[in-house]
Amino acid sequence: MSIAGDAGVSGKGLLVKADRIASTFDDELRASLANFSRPLKLVGILSTSSTPSKSYAEFTRKQCLILGVEFELRKTGAALSSELGEGDGVEDAIIDANEDTSVDGIMVYYPIFGVQQDHYLQQVVSPLKDVEGLHVKFHYNLYHNIRFIEPKSLFTSTPTNVNLPPVHGDEPPLGCVKSILPCTPLAIVKCLEYVGVYNKILQYGDRAYGKMITVINRSEVVGRPLAALLANDGAHVFSVDIDSIQEYTKRPLRQSQETELRFHPRHVVHTCNKTLQECLAISDVVVTAVPNPDYKVNTEWLKPGCVCLNVSSEKNFDKDVRDKASLYIPAVGKVTILMLLRNLVRLRLYAEMINETSRGIQN
Amino acid sequence: MSIAGDAGVSGKGLLVKADRIASTFDDELRASLANFSRPLKLVGILSTSSTPSKSYAEFTRKQCLILGVEFELRKTGAALSSELGEGDGVEDAIIDANEDTSVDGIMVYYPIFGVQQDHYLQQVVSPLKDVEGLHVKFHYNLYHNIRFIEPKSLFTSTPTNVNLPPVHGDEPPLGCVKSILPCTPLAIVKCLEYVGVYNKILQYGDRAYGKMITVINRSEVVGRPLAALLANDGAHVFSVDIDSIQEYTKRPLRQSQETELRFHPRHVVHTCNKTLQECLAISDVVVTAVPNPDYKVNTEWLKPGCVCLNVSSEKNFDKDVRDKASLYIPAVGKVTILMLLRNLVRLRLYAEMINETSRGIQN
Repeated sequence: MSIAGDAGVSGKGLLVKADRIASTFDDELRASLANFSRPLKLVGILSTSSTPSKSYAEFTRKQCLILGVEFELRKTGAALSSELGEGDGVEDAIIDANEDTSVDGIMVYYPIFGVQQDHYLQQVVSPLKDVEGLHVKFHYNLYHNIRFIEPKSLFTSTPTNVNLPPVHGDEPPLGCVKSILPCTPLAIVKCLEYVGVYNKILQYGDRAYGKMITVINRSEVVGRPLAALLANDGAHVFSVDIDSIQEYTKRPLRQSQETELRFHPRHVVHTCNKTLQECLAISDVVVTAVPNPDYKVNTEWLKPGCVCLNVSSEKNFDKDVRDKASLYIPAVGKVTILMLLRNLVRLRLYAEMINETSRGIQN
Repeated sequence: MSIAGDAGVSGKGLLVKADRIASTFDDELRASLANFSRPLKLVGILSTSSTPSKSYAEFTRKQCLILGVEFELRKTGAALSSELGEGDGVEDAIIDANEDTSVDGIMVYYPIFGVQQDHYLQQVVSPLKDVEGLHVKFHYNLYHNIRFIEPKSLFTSTPTNVNLPPVHGDEPPLGCVKSILPCTPLAIVKCLEYVGVYNKILQYGDRAYGKMITVINRSEVVGRPLAALLANDGAHVFSVDIDSIQEYTKRPLRQSQETELRFHPRHVVHTCNKTLQECLAISDVVVTAVPNPDYKVNTEWLKPGCVCLNVSSEKNFDKDVRDKASLYIPAVGKVTILMLLRNLVRLRLYAEMINETSRGIQN
């Protein structure tokens, strides 16, 4: 143990495993699942020969089995036969599952073709079965801090700007439900809630106020939605990508500056002139999601006592991270699956609400 | 002039400029525009300090002026002031234009943030005003060779699989209209039609049959939709990207192979083991869209008498390309704007059809 480290008196910071966090959602999920007249069905679509994807599919199956969700893995392309190409047939498999009324949720194992074509596929999944929350409708709601939606809005192609009053609690207004959040950023937020980064004494929608958070990665799947989520909850976020650093905050950066919030109170993005080292020096929380084994955050640069969370399957922190960090969460995969199953429950409920409404109209 | 070149007896191949091709659409467009009770209005959204984007915006204005379309350029972010960031406010500007009933079409000048975030923005543009044809609904229809749609389907978030009979002509069935095609791939097809790559003696929907075409680039904005369009029209396409080559064709590659076309007759993608040199040696047409000034197609590798078309602002062919090519089209920008204005006319018509239908329901 490094004595030069600024770790607490007890030495190294605390290692917090994701399964401990995930298990706090087990009871809630079991209770929700018991309310349905039949077991919910999740379809996984595996179309590549990727070993991590295969493992993740098996992990999904295990979690579904434990919680009583029916899981069916549909293989296509290189996952089915070495004679077929990577990703062959994945779009048809998605369309099939969209149209299959016995299927409540769809999970596609990415990456398949690369970010652009994968983004296209994410839009082919019906929003009503998109348990991963990757449809642009959900990203739009997240970026605009639209927390509650009318279930029928899931059917429309244009983004929804419901004129809702500002958020004063976490209960949806009458006729509205919670929007679906992308499950990886949501899992990260739940981990940060668990370790006390979110302060429950503060008002819902502002519980990360006072926290400085660095997020390294600005992809549309993890980094940017996460930065927006955290900023919408009051945090001051440094969003770090290969070629730039941005600040996300829903408060004016300077007293003199009038922030114009035109559509709904939400985060604002500013150019940032700080270096990564300067951001880390003042960050209470550091989240990394860089898919490169060579990328490591310099432990020396961390603020003593900060919270570190690694999302990437490649570890982006050095082994000595706990010499500086008070808490280290090395992975979030298990929480992600729980959030995905929570989305499954919600989407099934929303589908039932829509069916009831349309029956009401017919009667 | 290289005497080693395999050019025709007259020496160099023919240089075909885009304005010559574009002008063939002028009369049709003027006539369509004259049918409306008021001039159509196109809004351009410029949010960066990029010089090419600024030039393209001025070029759009000029074309609109010539044809009698009202053009309004809305500037935001770094395009408005050097104190604002690149892309600042672009999403709000899109939402404003979506909601502005005086606006018939929206054109956003990309690139702004990079492919991922730009793809998100492309989905925020209402499909009813998406003259660039970049909404995933239009890509979905293109990839599935769904040529005709019901106008109201533009409002739905789930992809449309109308059970239409196979295409037997270019007239939409009753109640249906043509889907919108992304304007750059469409402009390329129109250029290839002009220079005779499409054979009008063949049936509509199969007029590129017999042609081998190499497309270098597989982005979701140009290369992949273009490869699919050409294959849906009967061509045998080699889709070349940095790390792979694929074959797009709607016919079985081998006699023994049963191609399963489950949803609608359309192109099928196969892995290809040929090298770029082997593809070029048998290609009647070569289209390049590589945004890298250092990328050049080796003229030596071209099939004598082929048609070469460059889409990128960086020229991807060497100066001696016409020593081998029978025809060379160095740019398509002007045709792209014409296609965009054609999309504007169509979308305005579709909006009127939708309004009439809803009035019919109310009466």
